[in-house]
Amino acid sequence: MPLYTVTTSDGLLSAQQRDVIAAELVRIHTAAMNVPANFVHSIFPTYPRSHAYVAGERSAVSSIVGVIRAGHTPEEKTRLVQSLWKMFQEKTGVSDRDLAIALQEVPASQAMENGGVMPELEREKERS
Amino acid sequence: MPLYTVTTSDGLLSAQQRDVIAAELVRIHTAAMNVPANFVHSIFPTYPRSHAYVAGERSAVSSIVGVIRAGHTPEEKTRLVQSLWKMFQEKTGVSDRDLAIALQEVPASQAMENGGVMPELEREKERS
Amino acid sequence: MPLYTVTTSDGLLSAQQRDVIAAELVRIHTAAMNVPANFVHSIFPTYPRSHAYVAGERSAVSSIVGVIRAGHTPEEKTRLVQSLWKMFQEKTGVSDRDLAIALQEVPASQAMENGGVMPELEREKERS
Repeated sequence: MPLYTVTTSDGLLSAQQRDVIAAELVRIHTAAMNVPANFVHSIFPTYPRSHAYVAGERSAVSSIVGVIRAGHTPEEKTRLVQSLWKMFQEKTGVSDRDLAIALQEVPASQAMENGGVMPELEREKERS
Repeated sequence: MPLYTVTTSDGLLSAQQRDVIAAELVRIHTAAMNVPANFVHSIFPTYPRSHAYVAGERSAVSSIVGVIRAGHTPEEKTRLVQSLWKMFQEKTGVSDRDLAIALQEVPASQAMENGGVMPELEREKERS
Repeated sequence: MPLYTVTTSDGLLSAQQRDVIAAELVRIHTAAMNVPANFVHSIFPTYPRSHAYVAGERSAVSSIVGVIRAGHTPEEKTRLVQSLWKMFQEKTGVSDRDLAIALQEVPASQAMENGGVMPELEREKERS
């Protein structure tokens, strides 16, 4: 972890924008969460145009859902979400109304990346 | 929040059905959870036909996954899930076998919508 | 539950591979978690090629996210994740670097499948 899923309307992001956002996800996550870059996975699925809504009205909603390892403080997670929000808006111009970001925590024992079950965050901190 | 992701097989829903379901998500969620309509986001991704299974057999599974703010009672969440189930079946005719619905809770401090980190549910209740 | 979402790059999996993986998800999950097969739902969405990254570099990431009923032990969940990992690599040849798997737990009271809210795991164990 983390696994970031950045979902946007088909055609919203250019390849270059995706490249930049993927690099920014690595930069922001490794800085905030102290995780090596090669654990940062991101996927950019698209949905067909006009397949999203705000308050029941069609709108090109973008969402970022990050599945992260449990154990960070609320302050760390709030700062991470705020950094992601700012970055995504700077790179895309998407409005406040059309963006939703959430972090979902998963205990390290029930996730695998790079071939291994990740250590719990506390244990890792003690080691370093 | 909430962010509802309604995933269906390509071609299952018409544009009109999506419009109706998106409106119903707003109606049901705002009534059950006491949230303003403009916080209700929904995305309707599709998957290629024959890309879903029940019990290992190809079947046009539909799923609704709602990322909601943590803090509601189990009774409120059960009622919400049941309302969503009933509504989706009424609007689509999808069978019990082909539908799965789950609510995932995220603490308000690790999510953003409409440009701000949401208040915790308890604090908000005290204020109102 | 469970609801497994197996996300891959467009064209990575053949129909036959999806069939085999869906059957394996049922076999592994029912054995590990003691759930009837007809509760095992799986969806295989695809994303457009070049829409995923590891460490900021384009890479054909595959992910398996399982939404499961809360209440299993950490050991059970770790074993499940490891079995899924091994199976997926055997069937696809995807590298350690390009795979991410996580289990997300949802209390039974806030999910529905096959037309009913699922019983809590503890209560069910007592009954059986």
